Amino acid sequence: MNKTHQLQNYLQQNKISAAFITNPDNVFYITGFRSNPHERLFGVMLFADADPFVICPKMEVPDVEASGWQFGAIGHEDTEDAMDILQQAAESRQASLTALAVEKTHLTVSRQEALSGIFPDAAFHSIDDQLNAMRVIKDSREIELLAAAAELADYAIEIGCDTLKEGITELEVLSEIELALKKRGVSHMSFDTMVLFGDKTASPHGKPGNRKLRKGDFVLFDLGVIWEGYCSDITRTVAFGTPSDEQRAIYDTVLRAELASVEAAKAGITAAELDRTARQVIEDAGYGDYFTHRLGHGLGISVHEYPSLHGANDLPLTAGMAFTVEPGIYVPGVAGVRIEDDLVLTEDGVTILTQFPKDLQILGEN
Amino acid sequence: MNKTHQLQNYLQQNKISAAFITNPDNVFYITGFRSNPHERLFGVMLFADADPFVICPKMEVPDVEASGWQFGAIGHEDTEDAMDILQQAAESRQASLTALAVEKTHLTVSRQEALSGIFPDAAFHSIDDQLNAMRVIKDSREIELLAAAAELADYAIEIGCDTLKEGITELEVLSEIELALKKRGVSHMSFDTMVLFGDKTASPHGKPGNRKLRKGDFVLFDLGVIWEGYCSDITRTVAFGTPSDEQRAIYDTVLRAELASVEAAKAGITAAELDRTARQVIEDAGYGDYFTHRLGHGLGISVHEYPSLHGANDLPLTAGMAFTVEPGIYVPGVAGVRIEDDLVLTEDGVTILTQFPKDLQILGEN
Repeated sequence: MNKTHQLQNYLQQNKISAAFITNPDNVFYITGFRSNPHERLFGVMLFADADPFVICPKMEVPDVEASGWQFGAIGHEDTEDAMDILQQAAESRQASLTALAVEKTHLTVSRQEALSGIFPDAAFHSIDDQLNAMRVIKDSREIELLAAAAELADYAIEIGCDTLKEGITELEVLSEIELALKKRGVSHMSFDTMVLFGDKTASPHGKPGNRKLRKGDFVLFDLGVIWEGYCSDITRTVAFGTPSDEQRAIYDTVLRAELASVEAAKAGITAAELDRTARQVIEDAGYGDYFTHRLGHGLGISVHEYPSLHGANDLPLTAGMAFTVEPGIYVPGVAGVRIEDDLVLTEDGVTILTQFPKDLQILGEN
Repeated sequence: MNKTHQLQNYLQQNKISAAFITNPDNVFYITGFRSNPHERLFGVMLFADADPFVICPKMEVPDVEASGWQFGAIGHEDTEDAMDILQQAAESRQASLTALAVEKTHLTVSRQEALSGIFPDAAFHSIDDQLNAMRVIKDSREIELLAAAAELADYAIEIGCDTLKEGITELEVLSEIELALKKRGVSHMSFDTMVLFGDKTASPHGKPGNRKLRKGDFVLFDLGVIWEGYCSDITRTVAFGTPSDEQRAIYDTVLRAELASVEAAKAGITAAELDRTARQVIEDAGYGDYFTHRLGHGLGISVHEYPSLHGANDLPLTAGMAFTVEPGIYVPGVAGVRIEDDLVLTEDGVTILTQFPKDLQILGEN
């Protein structure tokens, strides 16, 4: 059943007249069309008892039609009142709207007030849980795209490792990675590519700059690729030159934690239990205070999506869910290590989408 | 007067207990600290009668403190209820909140519901107009940063032009531009860099790909740089090889339109009138149907910010406002041309921040 029909059934079953969806990721999920509307009105309106439509800036109407969306698009110009146009289009589909489902986690207060203005009889319902429930279970086509995105992420790490040489800067390595990906047709990364050297690896949110690579540095790559709308997200940490004993101890601990979480990842475990498997390894090694973030996050059309894998989330994980596991240890002044894979749960286990080796790679030694 | 004090005065004058600001651009404007919190709670809370604070993920607290923000930051972890922490921090500053200002154009409905939960007595006011009114007038330091960002945009166009050669792809040119900028310390573009060749220039929202450059192509660059938090946005169209008469006619029309809008840009003119100056030139030349978007947009911390320069906006422009003018003509199957500058209005005229030549550049001829 396609997404439009699924949502229409949901509206009928819950006696909700219509849904207005404006999160670009959700619009893409439903329609196959992606756009960044900035401040302009862009969304898909679905009805319990009528066909849906897309509303978008007029100049994007041809692109919506070319994307394969079969229900038509209504355009508005900057000089027009887009809400008026939405109201007319909605009323031509369904005479009265008594209940309207919206993404409460995305819709702004001012948009809600404007919707209240044009649909004065409508009570607002949240459709976030329904969209999360649909998006969290990936179908086989989605898993193929996630796997393709992960393969490109592996390739990116390979390029990054090949580029390392004494004196090169973080930004130069980053550029070489992104150029190689662009040549393979990648137009967008999932997020700002991170390439960090040496002491900078100890900040989980460090920014690449003109730091030059020196022997003895750890190099941390954290990056992802968007491929046909689906994201990957990989982290690898490698050594440039011989690592110290402390660097090795940190690396080994993170690797054991990461492997423990991959091993434990199967349908039925909760997010909190999975977080615990990795965290326990790190705590037992005495580094508990240096693992300062959650284990991972859902992955799909958004690079950070439902569910969040942290110690207070009792959600049982089920087959079809895709997520990252990414334990890390960050010891200021010494080194940071993070290792991250993209996983998909299956009926009887787990598929690891990211494949770049995780044994400590020691580079720059002739 | 700094921004914190300005907002505190605003709250006092309007008898509003507090403001909670979560748009990352506005938080940066007020605090000098920039972060992308994804789904995590991140904002600055200001009070009529107490000192403000930042609330952010715990691992970012040191970064906030290092950024020069003098009023402290309160951290929360993924396993904690961030709203509880916000409530406690707010109540320790101000016993009761009867009115709370929020960015209704940014705050989500679910966040507003959560704020209603922790501040049950608070009525919600919009602080958007106040923030727009503050941000729209740039001070001398902001204008310096906009000028520095524009100079880097000029440099990017220069690199792009130097890179053009027969057979090179749009993505390769794009990569060369971004690498050159990264070497100058630019870590973020204002938006996805656009490099389009030939027929692809006729789409105002085309995407760079593997199209190869051929003699007779127009090349359209639309790009911008973020420099210390401030954006530039430039478009130039150049010819690779000898242009046809029709290409020349389109180019000359856009150039005359753009020059007309720069000439007319002075304090007192309305956004609609300024849009009209350029549109009239294009309509008179018979290309009115092919200028399918507004004239321009405000520019600052956001690349598209208040005000919007379109034909239905009667806002008078005043000294200190920074914005783009970017007329274009897009004739499908023939060519697209857009020319865009960044302007700042002064008391007695206008400063043009982008300086790359606008006479038709004909490249690729030996």
